[in-house]
Amino acid sequence: MRKITIIGGGSRNWAITFMRDLALDEGFEGELNLYDIDQEASLNNAEVARRIFTLAGRQDRISCRAQADLGKALDGACFVIISIEPGLTECRYGDLVLPEQYGILQTVGDTTGPGGIMRARRALPLFFDFARQIEKHCPDAWVVNYTNPMTLCTAALYRAFGSIKAFGCCHEVFGTQRFIAGLAEKWFNAPSIERKDIHLDITGINHFTFAAKASWNGIDLMPRLKEHARDPFFLEDHSAIAEERKKSEKWFECDRLVAMAFLRDFEAIGAAGDRHLCEFVPFFLTSEDNIASYGITRTPYQWRIREAARKKDLKFTDSELNKGRSDEEGVAIMNALLGGSSLVTNINFPNHGQAPYLAQGAIAETNALISSSGISPLSAALPSEALQHMIRSVSDEQSLVLDAMWEGDEQKLFQAFVSDPLVRLSLKASRRLFDQMLKASEIRY
Amino acid sequence: MRKITIIGGGSRNWAITFMRDLALDEGFEGELNLYDIDQEASLNNAEVARRIFTLAGRQDRISCRAQADLGKALDGACFVIISIEPGLTECRYGDLVLPEQYGILQTVGDTTGPGGIMRARRALPLFFDFARQIEKHCPDAWVVNYTNPMTLCTAALYRAFGSIKAFGCCHEVFGTQRFIAGLAEKWFNAPSIERKDIHLDITGINHFTFAAKASWNGIDLMPRLKEHARDPFFLEDHSAIAEERKKSEKWFECDRLVAMAFLRDFEAIGAAGDRHLCEFVPFFLTSEDNIASYGITRTPYQWRIREAARKKDLKFTDSELNKGRSDEEGVAIMNALLGGSSLVTNINFPNHGQAPYLAQGAIAETNALISSSGISPLSAALPSEALQHMIRSVSDEQSLVLDAMWEGDEQKLFQAFVSDPLVRLSLKASRRLFDQMLKASEIRY
Amino acid sequence: MRKITIIGGGSRNWAITFMRDLALDEGFEGELNLYDIDQEASLNNAEVARRIFTLAGRQDRISCRAQADLGKALDGACFVIISIEPGLTECRYGDLVLPEQYGILQTVGDTTGPGGIMRARRALPLFFDFARQIEKHCPDAWVVNYTNPMTLCTAALYRAFGSIKAFGCCHEVFGTQRFIAGLAEKWFNAPSIERKDIHLDITGINHFTFAAKASWNGIDLMPRLKEHARDPFFLEDHSAIAEERKKSEKWFECDRLVAMAFLRDFEAIGAAGDRHLCEFVPFFLTSEDNIASYGITRTPYQWRIREAARKKDLKFTDSELNKGRSDEEGVAIMNALLGGSSLVTNINFPNHGQAPYLAQGAIAETNALISSSGISPLSAALPSEALQHMIRSVSDEQSLVLDAMWEGDEQKLFQAFVSDPLVRLSLKASRRLFDQMLKASEIRY
Amino acid sequence: MRKITIIGGGSRNWAITFMRDLALDEGFEGELNLYDIDQEASLNNAEVARRIFTLAGRQDRISCRAQADLGKALDGACFVIISIEPGLTECRYGDLVLPEQYGILQTVGDTTGPGGIMRARRALPLFFDFARQIEKHCPDAWVVNYTNPMTLCTAALYRAFGSIKAFGCCHEVFGTQRFIAGLAEKWFNAPSIERKDIHLDITGINHFTFAAKASWNGIDLMPRLKEHARDPFFLEDHSAIAEERKKSEKWFECDRLVAMAFLRDFEAIGAAGDRHLCEFVPFFLTSEDNIASYGITRTPYQWRIREAARKKDLKFTDSELNKGRSDEEGVAIMNALLGGSSLVTNINFPNHGQAPYLAQGAIAETNALISSSGISPLSAALPSEALQHMIRSVSDEQSLVLDAMWEGDEQKLFQAFVSDPLVRLSLKASRRLFDQMLKASEIRY
Repeated sequence: MRKITIIGGGSRNWAITFMRDLALDEGFEGELNLYDIDQEASLNNAEVARRIFTLAGRQDRISCRAQADLGKALDGACFVIISIEPGLTECRYGDLVLPEQYGILQTVGDTTGPGGIMRARRALPLFFDFARQIEKHCPDAWVVNYTNPMTLCTAALYRAFGSIKAFGCCHEVFGTQRFIAGLAEKWFNAPSIERKDIHLDITGINHFTFAAKASWNGIDLMPRLKEHARDPFFLEDHSAIAEERKKSEKWFECDRLVAMAFLRDFEAIGAAGDRHLCEFVPFFLTSEDNIASYGITRTPYQWRIREAARKKDLKFTDSELNKGRSDEEGVAIMNALLGGSSLVTNINFPNHGQAPYLAQGAIAETNALISSSGISPLSAALPSEALQHMIRSVSDEQSLVLDAMWEGDEQKLFQAFVSDPLVRLSLKASRRLFDQMLKASEIRY
Repeated sequence: MRKITIIGGGSRNWAITFMRDLALDEGFEGELNLYDIDQEASLNNAEVARRIFTLAGRQDRISCRAQADLGKALDGACFVIISIEPGLTECRYGDLVLPEQYGILQTVGDTTGPGGIMRARRALPLFFDFARQIEKHCPDAWVVNYTNPMTLCTAALYRAFGSIKAFGCCHEVFGTQRFIAGLAEKWFNAPSIERKDIHLDITGINHFTFAAKASWNGIDLMPRLKEHARDPFFLEDHSAIAEERKKSEKWFECDRLVAMAFLRDFEAIGAAGDRHLCEFVPFFLTSEDNIASYGITRTPYQWRIREAARKKDLKFTDSELNKGRSDEEGVAIMNALLGGSSLVTNINFPNHGQAPYLAQGAIAETNALISSSGISPLSAALPSEALQHMIRSVSDEQSLVLDAMWEGDEQKLFQAFVSDPLVRLSLKASRRLFDQMLKASEIRY
Repeated sequence: MRKITIIGGGSRNWAITFMRDLALDEGFEGELNLYDIDQEASLNNAEVARRIFTLAGRQDRISCRAQADLGKALDGACFVIISIEPGLTECRYGDLVLPEQYGILQTVGDTTGPGGIMRARRALPLFFDFARQIEKHCPDAWVVNYTNPMTLCTAALYRAFGSIKAFGCCHEVFGTQRFIAGLAEKWFNAPSIERKDIHLDITGINHFTFAAKASWNGIDLMPRLKEHARDPFFLEDHSAIAEERKKSEKWFECDRLVAMAFLRDFEAIGAAGDRHLCEFVPFFLTSEDNIASYGITRTPYQWRIREAARKKDLKFTDSELNKGRSDEEGVAIMNALLGGSSLVTNINFPNHGQAPYLAQGAIAETNALISSSGISPLSAALPSEALQHMIRSVSDEQSLVLDAMWEGDEQKLFQAFVSDPLVRLSLKASRRLFDQMLKASEIRY
Repeated sequence: MRKITIIGGGSRNWAITFMRDLALDEGFEGELNLYDIDQEASLNNAEVARRIFTLAGRQDRISCRAQADLGKALDGACFVIISIEPGLTECRYGDLVLPEQYGILQTVGDTTGPGGIMRARRALPLFFDFARQIEKHCPDAWVVNYTNPMTLCTAALYRAFGSIKAFGCCHEVFGTQRFIAGLAEKWFNAPSIERKDIHLDITGINHFTFAAKASWNGIDLMPRLKEHARDPFFLEDHSAIAEERKKSEKWFECDRLVAMAFLRDFEAIGAAGDRHLCEFVPFFLTSEDNIASYGITRTPYQWRIREAARKKDLKFTDSELNKGRSDEEGVAIMNALLGGSSLVTNINFPNHGQAPYLAQGAIAETNALISSSGISPLSAALPSEALQHMIRSVSDEQSLVLDAMWEGDEQKLFQAFVSDPLVRLSLKASRRLFDQMLKASEIRY
């Protein structure tokens, strides 16, 4: 009888998938606890969970309850999942629209850049508190974070409770595997290659991860990938495609042109979606035209508002709640840690040498062996020096943000702000934008 | 069609087992090449190999040939195994008997102490040469070393060919797993626990490895092990048992009293046989009585001479050559590297952070994930500071020996010699013994 | 009888000062050797040197000769000074004017930014060669570099000859000391404070150095400096002053507003001229207006051409050649190394821990104790984390440039180029500019 | 008006010298405060101090008072000196005589070995308390420790108050300088070379320091020193000399044979007295004969008891209190830190890279530049790898002792005990001796 606790999950997509996978895991018996700052959301989710468990015929083995008190939700848990939205969707106005007024373009704005920094400013105090509550109520629990900014939220847990057993999960790498699997199918005339069979030596920081080594079935794919990255046909202007995507509101699609531009110019393929990768360096988001030429779009603020409203009122049909196992790995990871089959996947974890170009203790994303012995991060083939420097810079900026929030030092936050590669304003203009964003970020629950 | 090359293997035990396991591996097709400085030995072994393959009905898939030329044996190999005896058995007179005359007692004398240093002095030039030949003939091959001194021989390969893909294998940890499995069977009234199911967080240097964490089925075994280590009944004087072992020439047996004394006094269990563990520190080999009290014996030089002769003339019956799969992992490791199922086992590999208390690049023994992506060493729970210092000291001494041999600097070798914990002589006496041992070690093939 | 060799020195300012100081150093006896790729320049300089020594009445003790062969110039030297201009002044067109066409503004362009990278590309092959010649002809000589880019030229010497005894000297720090001395005179109503009495804890990279600690006579000056940095009167818009400076061609003047902006926003005072400091970060050179607001100007290419011509034809009067001792420290440093009084001053030297936030071996600028025992770099109070990251980024970019030139890898040079904080172009535009600059940089002697 | 505080000083030698030097320092005006756990001792010393200041005619400028309360003694002090005897002289019975009964011979027994560990056990709690009191009463004061075990006492100050400005002073290096000065006088036929003019690149740990570089007037002395170290005449058996020293109770004399044996066999000269150097390694204190062959003696416990009694009753004549300036550097160091002329001397200070082979933060002994900017440790030429390992081992053992005392973990202290190179007993015998020594060490004030 195990107790699992989910903090947040109100955005529903991720939580529903996890509960379905859990229902299909025959070994599991126990209790799911849901906690959300918006109690109605957790009550709704608990309702959905019970439907899922019943549909799967597991209602005798798994129960679910919404908890109004975080402490009670955590008491005795062996597994805690955190997936929250830090602040109202309206806060994203400050994150995204204000910087635009200064010529700073962001595609997502939830991880890095001015938007990511402000989002971290809202999220980190919550994560400091989560960690302290976990220390008090379930210090030995495994804690998985799915919240962005992934690296900073995970780092915040460790800052507030040094011996927490936390890590961050992100499936962006899966998309890169699928992209390469598709290419490999053509190259080797193979009917259907599973993404899991594409081995990537993952290294970097969440959403700014790279692979300098890729193989399938023991075959080194790098020579072919590099050739492909230099193929003029592949690299042609994708502005028309971007235009089409805007019209059809397919904001999350991309063609891996940014990922492959990194391979062409910096010798390792980007292992996240293009819309994330491009935000960490100054050379993609230079103009709307340049962005469009890579086939990517910037999600409009207004769409985000609409989407949040739509999700809130979402109803699920039985068939939606009774689908087969997903491609997500949350439940498999939980199983591995609690004694089941071990697996190797990419996770965000404190650096103890797996990313030797980063500071010790900084949160790095690499592959890891996950088993009943815990999490053993795996070293990867090193990306080029130039990439190592870029990743290190990102990590250093994040370290400033973490310190700023921990120490309550707004000047330090400003130092991180002006150091961001997307901010190229004079100190005066930076200060003005920063102050405006601080104010806009104050909208509270 | 893969080519595997074995250098050495004349001592036969290990080679015969490997060939049997290879014959039983249905996926393998290819050619085994045997090279030995003693060509007769490799011809004999090739003969035995062909009998094994035929008995297993695999003679159409695996062939075997003895090679007189090392270069030819290596050309195009994808897997190279090194298991040699550095120098004649008579060299062991110097290694073992001369130090005795100065009051220095060694149980094995092939890894550390005066005997280990002299053995390294004979072995390392050979390993420098192996590495150069591998660089020339099969630079991409995986190279497994089974020769002692394990750490130094493996380090020598890397010194001479920096990008060699080499590692060392040793099954001493298996014995520790079996010992703990036996205890766990009693504690949990479990009928039969497999050694592989005892998880140990291995960390250290070959033959001086430790586990600060042990678990079975997700159950932490350390509290019970620590209690056992303080049990007066377990720790009573084993001199009578040692006496019995001497009489019956059971030199290789031990009761894990040394391993458990480390747990009692230094908080981690020794993960090698007692006869190896005791040679790295000054407090076990202080007198024949003290040694015997732990139930261990010192293998006599004369027995080694007799045993070498016996092995040379060994004949094998069909049933000996047609036994089932062994507990050894050589073939499973090879398979994992060449594309088969991955596995986790203990290996000796350059430190890239898996043993953070050792110098970068020093050969450390830890668990590793072995897969088609190569070798990914796994970090372990850290042993106590005191143990970390002891292991570091051993590693530092080995680094001196390696440098001394690489640079041909006999004075540096002497510095390593007087730094060894088993040598507690005046500088004058040390110099005299050192010079005598150098001379005794010169006996050549 | 000591032999000193000067490589370059054709720009004359620095060389003339050094020779005057040398003439006034009563302890010195020996021979000055001058080598320049432009042999006429060295013949002219030798002529001037002899006039200086004669005017000082030292012609019996110091001789001077121009050498056409670098090897002969170096043979047996105990002190080598390198002060060259890498490439024709016309090369600066590519360094400065081409980037302007892409909106990249540089004030000096000889240290970092696109201009600094291209200048490094011209200089480094020469420095690799100097180091090899020094290894051959005078391996024990002390080697002082005065050439920009200082850090990279000094690093190049170590790359080509690992045990060279080289360091870089730069007097930018002196100006910061004078600025603070001026303030301290007012604060403490002290009539005349010498720059040497202002103690600064220097740390960073040449032209991007900082002091987080400043004192005079044991009095901590930081509280007053920080107050001053926030004084609105001090920080008012200096555009009118910049305009005036342009008109009167006073390109090298500055008011330390950039240095003090670093203090205000990043907690340490910049310890180089504003025109250098501003080139390492993206927030000063954003527009001509922003630059002018700090009172600084960008030296025009055409003025540089005129100035080079003027210097070439420069004639010196006797009184110019017979002035008193300068504020420069070249001769004092040489004396300290050769056995005279030791001194503490700022130098550029491989990092062995004095700048713990930089990679080991990277060239760092800190204070050092200079004595007959050699150069002992001194640690400094650490600047803020944000500054440490910025300095580290600069150092990382330089490391890429050094590797690129050493390995002849133009793609790596491009990676450094797009990583520079002044380059904020799309990859496409960056590539175009880079290629144009490569071509423009090819103008040869 | 400055306040200086001396904690301890009851043994008088050192304190009297310091007070005389202080009286002769014309720049100093202020107040000396004396605190001793034995209040009578501090009252006596205050009396002597006043006589000294009066004899020097400085009584108007320097006053002295004994304080019964440590807090009052420290309040507002700018300079604190600690020179205590941890425990009664009778405690030394346990330190020295008990180990002898197990065959463990120590020459001094106050720094390392079983005696040093027990002395540390008595001293460290006092130093933790001193640091806490200093944090409370004078956190900005400079703190000089003269107490043994020097390294551990200084480390204890930093452990209890992380930002204390403490360092340790020891004049053992002076003796090495004098020894070399004496040789240089002969070699160069120079009438009288001052010890300060012998430059030694000091590196190591207090009493186990080495110099791999020695020079005089810019002349490298190492080639001649190495030749001397191999001179059979110099290295002949000094047993007769040792015998003579015992008879005449000249316990503190030595001939630098141990220091030179290190040079001969390990390539750097020991830079402390032989009686200290020999205690850190297993190859000198192997037998009474081996010790005597180096001309050194072991101070008997009974003599120590007699000597302590003699010192207690010591009366000073006016001429003893009115001698000229000593060779000690305490007052010069204080002056340098408080704004006077800077100086370079050897000190014990946390490692920030000056001893790269030691852990960061471990207390290392190296030269340092001491000035109004504080203490800047200087790097030294590295000793041989073998020596680096030995020094590191000592430092590691000290780190265990420090942790043991800080955490109150007696088992950890035992781990340090059995790791000491002088302890070569079985674990059983070690435990017995350890327990006996713990008991003997309990004799309290």
